[in-house]
Amino acid sequence: MIPTKEDILNVKELVSPHVHNTPVLHSSAINKMVGCEVFFKCENFQRMGAFKMRGATNAMLQLTSEQRERGVTTHSSGNFAQAVALAAKSLGIKATIVMPANAPSVKKEAVEGYGAKIIICESTLEAREAGAQEVVDQTGATFIHPSNDIDVINGNSTAAQELFEDHPDLNSIFAPVGGGGLVAGTALATHHLSKAKTYGGEPSGADDAFQSLIAGYIIPPVNINTIADGLRTQLGDQNFPIIKELVEDIFLVEEDEIVAAMRLVWERMKIIIEPSSAVAFAALYKNRDLFKGQKVGIIVSGGNVDVTKLPF
Amino acid sequence: MIPTKEDILNVKELVSPHVHNTPVLHSSAINKMVGCEVFFKCENFQRMGAFKMRGATNAMLQLTSEQRERGVTTHSSGNFAQAVALAAKSLGIKATIVMPANAPSVKKEAVEGYGAKIIICESTLEAREAGAQEVVDQTGATFIHPSNDIDVINGNSTAAQELFEDHPDLNSIFAPVGGGGLVAGTALATHHLSKAKTYGGEPSGADDAFQSLIAGYIIPPVNINTIADGLRTQLGDQNFPIIKELVEDIFLVEEDEIVAAMRLVWERMKIIIEPSSAVAFAALYKNRDLFKGQKVGIIVSGGNVDVTKLPF
Repeated sequence: MIPTKEDILNVKELVSPHVHNTPVLHSSAINKMVGCEVFFKCENFQRMGAFKMRGATNAMLQLTSEQRERGVTTHSSGNFAQAVALAAKSLGIKATIVMPANAPSVKKEAVEGYGAKIIICESTLEAREAGAQEVVDQTGATFIHPSNDIDVINGNSTAAQELFEDHPDLNSIFAPVGGGGLVAGTALATHHLSKAKTYGGEPSGADDAFQSLIAGYIIPPVNINTIADGLRTQLGDQNFPIIKELVEDIFLVEEDEIVAAMRLVWERMKIIIEPSSAVAFAALYKNRDLFKGQKVGIIVSGGNVDVTKLPF
Repeated sequence: MIPTKEDILNVKELVSPHVHNTPVLHSSAINKMVGCEVFFKCENFQRMGAFKMRGATNAMLQLTSEQRERGVTTHSSGNFAQAVALAAKSLGIKATIVMPANAPSVKKEAVEGYGAKIIICESTLEAREAGAQEVVDQTGATFIHPSNDIDVINGNSTAAQELFEDHPDLNSIFAPVGGGGLVAGTALATHHLSKAKTYGGEPSGADDAFQSLIAGYIIPPVNINTIADGLRTQLGDQNFPIIKELVEDIFLVEEDEIVAAMRLVWERMKIIIEPSSAVAFAALYKNRDLFKGQKVGIIVSGGNVDVTKLPF
């Protein structure tokens, strides 16, 4: 059930020509504050500004040529819409993206800019799913889920795979937890390629993965309230078994801790990270006493922020 | 009079162990918009967040051991204060920084954090110069000028030297023009190590270097009005001859062009650059028709911005 080392290495070979091997940055000021060596894997510098390019690309590369001809579809208001649109464009595949009416117009424009067809639907999960299903029914397009798809998860693992190539001796690695696709991919790479342990960071205001790990089964999020808009989603049956098996722990962080972590990284490292990415660093910072003297990797998931609407 | 190739190569060897060899980033989206390949030399990732670390370090490395024992001093409200403080700390030299009373408290704290002694003076150039002179008279400290000092200029040249190591085939290179120390150092490296031409970007609201190049002698700035706070200074007798000889042209940019360029780099490259750095890119962007198909380097001078007070 859980992808093997060979599986993820094969995916790495397949995906690498289509994505950036993003830089790993560090800061002596931050190391001093945290009390360990922190290595930031900068997926904010990835194509379209987020790690989601990796999973979307792999999902399409796994399609047969007949499937590719019929195209792909997804529903998303954010980064995954852009990832599918750009990956499809790069691979010469037709993409139809179902976007809720309340998606920011800048994101709609970006998706159109990549040449994808957009279908606007009501802003409910039901309407989004129905819209995507209609595309599948009418065109035979393959639906790609942003996080609960094993090809997407394997694609996401390539970020941590690159990080371990650069820094094979990491002791721990942190990823933010939203739909679970990134932390599951990160845990796969960590498990197969290192002796490190994988930790997740999750907002207290969307703590469904934390609760699910305790319960042992998937608990849907309730009363979601977090600035980390990329993490307002829930786990799925493809990624939860991996998380349950391979993620050491999930740490919760509060909203003010997310904003403070985001600001600290902006000011000290001079890089733009989105609130969801700050969650992973906030989780390390809050629990820094547990990681003293370690080498710790942080998957900076993305940098797509509206710079006119900052929380500081 | 103008430093030789051997001079700047020697400085590079001396300074390199004490500064970061900063990464060079690029963006296919930006290349497409500008119509040429643009390579951003990220001195915003330099120690203390700006290129000024390079010049300050070299100036101190050139001191005799007796001079080092007596310490160094400068007057500055901004990046150079931090650069001298941090370089002095790294080299075990005592630093006394004269800062105007109206300098942002965050910058005073940073200077103190590096262990330098601060003397607060009135917020006029006269008071600042008098304050620094008093330190020299009383302690025998060596005064280091932020831009009009040949050792500082040679130190600054190491940023472009590194850039040409990574990209020897650049056709043009842009630097912002304030006190003239960065563009002069950049022009030295470009002249001695490449076939490229050096261009300066300067705000219309502080166009003294542009006017000075036309006149052939130094014209002090009048009615300074620009968001690019690092560029509100004037040329000096050490850097102007180099600029006159080796800088191909200086392009003026308006305030809205500076802000737009800054925002474009933030949004597309996910890096934090200060308005002064945006001036160099804005100058290229405004004159992009002249550089079609070229490989162009941009010295991103720094990333020290108050993220709570953005112009967008």
